[in-house]
Amino acid sequence: MKLSKIFTKTRKDAPSDEQAKNAQLLIRAGYIHKEMAGVYSYMPLGWMVLNNIIQIISEEMNAIGGLELQMSGLQDPKLWQKTDEWNDEVVDVWFKSKLKNDQDIGFGYTHEAALANAMAHYVGSYKDLPFLAYQFQTKFRNEVRAKSGVMRTREFIMKDLYSFARSDQEHQEIYDKVKDSYVKIFDRLGIGDKTYMTYASGGSFSEFSHEFQTLADAGEDEVYLDEANSLAINKEVFNQKVLDQLSAKREQFTPHKMAEVGNIFSLGTKYSDAHGLMFTDKDGSHKPVVMGSYGIGPARVMGVIVEQMSDDMGLVWPKEIAPAQVLIVPIGNDKDVQATAESIYKEIEKQGVRALLDDRDVSPGQALADSELLGVPARIVVSNKTLAEDKVELMDRKSLKTKLLSAELAVKELSI
Amino acid sequence: MKLSKIFTKTRKDAPSDEQAKNAQLLIRAGYIHKEMAGVYSYMPLGWMVLNNIIQIISEEMNAIGGLELQMSGLQDPKLWQKTDEWNDEVVDVWFKSKLKNDQDIGFGYTHEAALANAMAHYVGSYKDLPFLAYQFQTKFRNEVRAKSGVMRTREFIMKDLYSFARSDQEHQEIYDKVKDSYVKIFDRLGIGDKTYMTYASGGSFSEFSHEFQTLADAGEDEVYLDEANSLAINKEVFNQKVLDQLSAKREQFTPHKMAEVGNIFSLGTKYSDAHGLMFTDKDGSHKPVVMGSYGIGPARVMGVIVEQMSDDMGLVWPKEIAPAQVLIVPIGNDKDVQATAESIYKEIEKQGVRALLDDRDVSPGQALADSELLGVPARIVVSNKTLAEDKVELMDRKSLKTKLLSAELAVKELSI
Repeated sequence: MKLSKIFTKTRKDAPSDEQAKNAQLLIRAGYIHKEMAGVYSYMPLGWMVLNNIIQIISEEMNAIGGLELQMSGLQDPKLWQKTDEWNDEVVDVWFKSKLKNDQDIGFGYTHEAALANAMAHYVGSYKDLPFLAYQFQTKFRNEVRAKSGVMRTREFIMKDLYSFARSDQEHQEIYDKVKDSYVKIFDRLGIGDKTYMTYASGGSFSEFSHEFQTLADAGEDEVYLDEANSLAINKEVFNQKVLDQLSAKREQFTPHKMAEVGNIFSLGTKYSDAHGLMFTDKDGSHKPVVMGSYGIGPARVMGVIVEQMSDDMGLVWPKEIAPAQVLIVPIGNDKDVQATAESIYKEIEKQGVRALLDDRDVSPGQALADSELLGVPARIVVSNKTLAEDKVELMDRKSLKTKLLSAELAVKELSI
Repeated sequence: MKLSKIFTKTRKDAPSDEQAKNAQLLIRAGYIHKEMAGVYSYMPLGWMVLNNIIQIISEEMNAIGGLELQMSGLQDPKLWQKTDEWNDEVVDVWFKSKLKNDQDIGFGYTHEAALANAMAHYVGSYKDLPFLAYQFQTKFRNEVRAKSGVMRTREFIMKDLYSFARSDQEHQEIYDKVKDSYVKIFDRLGIGDKTYMTYASGGSFSEFSHEFQTLADAGEDEVYLDEANSLAINKEVFNQKVLDQLSAKREQFTPHKMAEVGNIFSLGTKYSDAHGLMFTDKDGSHKPVVMGSYGIGPARVMGVIVEQMSDDMGLVWPKEIAPAQVLIVPIGNDKDVQATAESIYKEIEKQGVRALLDDRDVSPGQALADSELLGVPARIVVSNKTLAEDKVELMDRKSLKTKLLSAELAVKELSI
């Protein structure tokens, strides 16, 4: 794609009311537009990144047998009243409105009740179980404060997976499978080495739940980390009892700021009981289905990656989720320079590698500054100077290392 | 995919409160789940169909240079007050709620104001124009009544494209390009021959707008159609003045029930003026951007297709959007039968053709009835009877024509 075709523009400064580094950079680079506090729209480059993240998660959900569906955002209060979750004292993030007939209606902040209710229409026998259903669906949460950029917003796409099993044991097997899948996902997203499966409070159904927490100064969680043993415990359950259960020693842990990028919950039969999600087992007995729910917020992941990987000059995307693999920047209007840049661009795209060409009429200074701000993993600069040596300059955005090489070799290197 | 892995089930009857044929069939086939009046969730097979529709539209939007983005659902009243569209007297479909600080907030029913406001941050010069931006985004509309199944719902994904041009003439060129693109889209969706570009009321900016209307008894519009000349006029503007302008004769038109599957609007500078979406032209003058908006509701298209193409036995999907191209049904538990069905399934999938295998433990009667209800374009029945002749039975779901042929030939025919 040619930069001149992308209508967004980079800007020197973020809006003054934007405190979060991730949103500041994403706004400056034209990846997102701030609608209001805690509400962002995704412009083309930002939407590409978010979709690359979604694509990776989707592939891994399919790999463990998840079936994709799409629940409605609009929620019937009757469903949530069954577990007292319509009550604002219990759930304080509902956006509520009214139908024309004055009936209350909610905008889903999560979908456990909706899934349990829907599945009760399909599940009857033990033969119908187990299964996994997931969606990428827009949640609405009426947060009191939203100050972490795209990491905590009033509206966001969530990947929420739900599992339906016949027994606690079967549930545990699925739960472990999802756990492994999450490890793969965060590896593929390029934050595997900074992400820790963390013991957290389990709510009413199990002793622990598991959060996937990524090291990030802007994170809202405090997590005690034993790096040597890859053990992480959320501050909320960092106590002697838990340490004993994990055979861990308090002195090996140090506190870190982390951001929760995923969580996995055992729900027991809370929602199945409430919504009549029952099955007839082999022996003829009627039993409630054992449920689990498993979330990842792609935009939160995007925000954490920006927080973790960006530098003073701008964004730095991991290859796996970058909007393009290379940005080609011709310096000056010289015919040879322009023609070489264009031909490199075409050649790379022909190899099936996504490339950006800076064909805008801007100064070399701005083109170079923008190339750094945009965070594409590789940059090729073509100038009279490089062409004098029959070469182009290839820069790795992360390390900022540059090298001169022929256009052919540059294309070859990027096409691998 | 194997049917046993899909957790939904077919059912004999639709919910008693469901009046629309499209929703009745989609619910019975397990494609959608009714959450409440006018609100449906998409189960895996339904979500596949909807995504196939979305994919086709997306390809055609990209083909005319559209860039995809994603605006927020949450809308700041301030934006819409500028054109008096926050006023319930003017727009009667808002879902409104409140932030924790008691500030009003809306759930987007369309995005003209949001786009104009966002683009004002990027557009400055004539060099930044023209461009096209589109999204597949969930709209919320507080409809008084919702009785047409998935054709008119309180929540739905809309493809909304917005165009930004420097002059009325440039706008008109884009408008015509989108018009052509829409013709292609409805052709590819399999309803091209039943869909008519229809003259409709243009609102305040132009004499006409264009609706794309598809013949459907369940449609909410009355359209006067001159089939011989491919002219269609919405009842609301079917008058002598319009007939004169189109050099058309009243007696050649007959009224038909139709459903609007797409619309294209010239917006003039209404939103640009309101939101300061201006550009500096070549001559240094400041001008407002000329906007257009262009909608297609993928679920409405899905509903219309069901209304138009289904028969007494169930759904009939056009190949282009079907959840699979063939459903393979082994009759009975005979080893040969099962093995042949399985091997055909594998062979077809290997050819990159999406197939379903009915591996459920159900009666032949139910398997055959379900195969008709599900509406997959082709069905292969394998039974002792067909295998006795070393053949399988291939049925075309639309014509219901069957033929016996060898498994190899059946695979070959479906893989073309």
